[in-house]
Amino acid sequence: MGANMARCLRERGYTVAAVYDRDAKVAQALADELSAKACETLAPVTASADIIFTVVTDDNAQRAVFATTGDSLLVGASGKTFVNCATITPSVHVEIEALAERAGASALEACMASSIPQARNGTLYLMCGGKKPVFDRLRPVLTELSDQGKLLRYIGPAGTAAQVKALVNMVMNINTAGLSEGLGLGAALGLDLKMLIEVFSQTGAASRIVATDGEDMVNRDHTCFFSAAHAAKDSGIALALGSECGLSLPLAAATKAQYDRLVSLGLGGLDKSGIAELTFPGRGTPQA
Amino acid sequence: MGANMARCLRERGYTVAAVYDRDAKVAQALADELSAKACETLAPVTASADIIFTVVTDDNAQRAVFATTGDSLLVGASGKTFVNCATITPSVHVEIEALAERAGASALEACMASSIPQARNGTLYLMCGGKKPVFDRLRPVLTELSDQGKLLRYIGPAGTAAQVKALVNMVMNINTAGLSEGLGLGAALGLDLKMLIEVFSQTGAASRIVATDGEDMVNRDHTCFFSAAHAAKDSGIALALGSECGLSLPLAAATKAQYDRLVSLGLGGLDKSGIAELTFPGRGTPQA
Repeated sequence: MGANMARCLRERGYTVAAVYDRDAKVAQALADELSAKACETLAPVTASADIIFTVVTDDNAQRAVFATTGDSLLVGASGKTFVNCATITPSVHVEIEALAERAGASALEACMASSIPQARNGTLYLMCGGKKPVFDRLRPVLTELSDQGKLLRYIGPAGTAAQVKALVNMVMNINTAGLSEGLGLGAALGLDLKMLIEVFSQTGAASRIVATDGEDMVNRDHTCFFSAAHAAKDSGIALALGSECGLSLPLAAATKAQYDRLVSLGLGGLDKSGIAELTFPGRGTPQA
Repeated sequence: MGANMARCLRERGYTVAAVYDRDAKVAQALADELSAKACETLAPVTASADIIFTVVTDDNAQRAVFATTGDSLLVGASGKTFVNCATITPSVHVEIEALAERAGASALEACMASSIPQARNGTLYLMCGGKKPVFDRLRPVLTELSDQGKLLRYIGPAGTAAQVKALVNMVMNINTAGLSEGLGLGAALGLDLKMLIEVFSQTGAASRIVATDGEDMVNRDHTCFFSAAHAAKDSGIALALGSECGLSLPLAAATKAQYDRLVSLGLGGLDKSGIAELTFPGRGTPQA
């Protein structure tokens, strides 16, 4: 995601000064492509730019790049602005905002409810949380990433965008798991699955997931846009929020259990559509 | 549903000769409205018409109107055609087709993946199962009910349309239960639910259910279009099919458990959106 956002911004005339990846070779290749500097540590990234985007995997990775000791994006961060795009636990965004402010910097969460092609094309659905003046200052660059701002939303204080994002992914994952059961049962009954997808798409079963994942489930094309492991993580974030609120969320729990099972089978790298490997008859040895 | 289909057909120039309802008063009121005959038993319905539509509640009700002894639609049925619209166990449609043929009649299943307003307006999504020549013969009248045939589908032999319908409702119910969890958790987090519905509708969480049931869940408007009790029944039909096929369907099972819980709380008469009464914080004493 981060690489494609960088490609998009460079195309729109922004200077991408520096890039960092845990894998130095990945960083170097992207840096060569974008005429940027490849950084092997974090502090030089902050030194190179006014606005620093982070796209990490999880809470721990987000905290690690904003470490309070040693190499960190917070080194020399005074006056800089961080835009944190990962789907992580909402309270971590609150922590990071406080750390950034203590370093004289600003932070905004910009949760992306879209996938790789949208990052590349600048048509991300971006939900932002943080201080409103920080959001307003970043509006020009965020506008380039969000279909000229048509898909840009200010949600509220730090953490609220991550809450909404966790809810979006929780519901999306439920719809995905549900569709995989519908198509799996259709396959078991010997129904024409092309017809079944068409009927789903035209009735109360219709969802964006039918359009994006239906055929992939049938064809076992689980090329990864959004991994099963990420689906498990995001449903877990939502379940943790539910648990804090004392809510029972049985569908979200059943969905997380399915994605956890996929991960435990070593299939966490499949796209979220890979959940169909658990529900179609005779599967279990995925081809993708 | 049946009354509204009758209203629609009469409006389109068909003669509605006779109507029957277990509640004689309901039948009489509809008969008066449509200048039809109200029948207090089943045999006269068959005697009055060439094509007889049935819209019943469940398997037992479907079998009861086609009883092989006593009062029954099968009495004097030779040459008549039955169109059976209920969402029931697929194998029951196979039984009924055989019984009808033994009586010299024909039967077609016409499963409706739509609700009351669509019945009234002749825009039902109609999925048909049975012998193709029977379907072809009924095409003119079915066309009037299905947006001039745009929403009319021939699925295959008797029972297959009910299979597809069970799958549609299974997936729809999962999406409904999932949305109720997303909005319930959003409410618990104090998020703006109008904003949340908008975000859901524009992201991977989008589904037809977001559009049809989202606001109703928030506003506790559970005026019944498709009851929670029916949702429990239809998910049960799909689960039984899955069980026959040896498939594990945890999302469908969790959804059925929620609707069963709603029914056991005496709330089975609420619309399917009533499942939100189980997931929003502080609810449990529904207002509708």
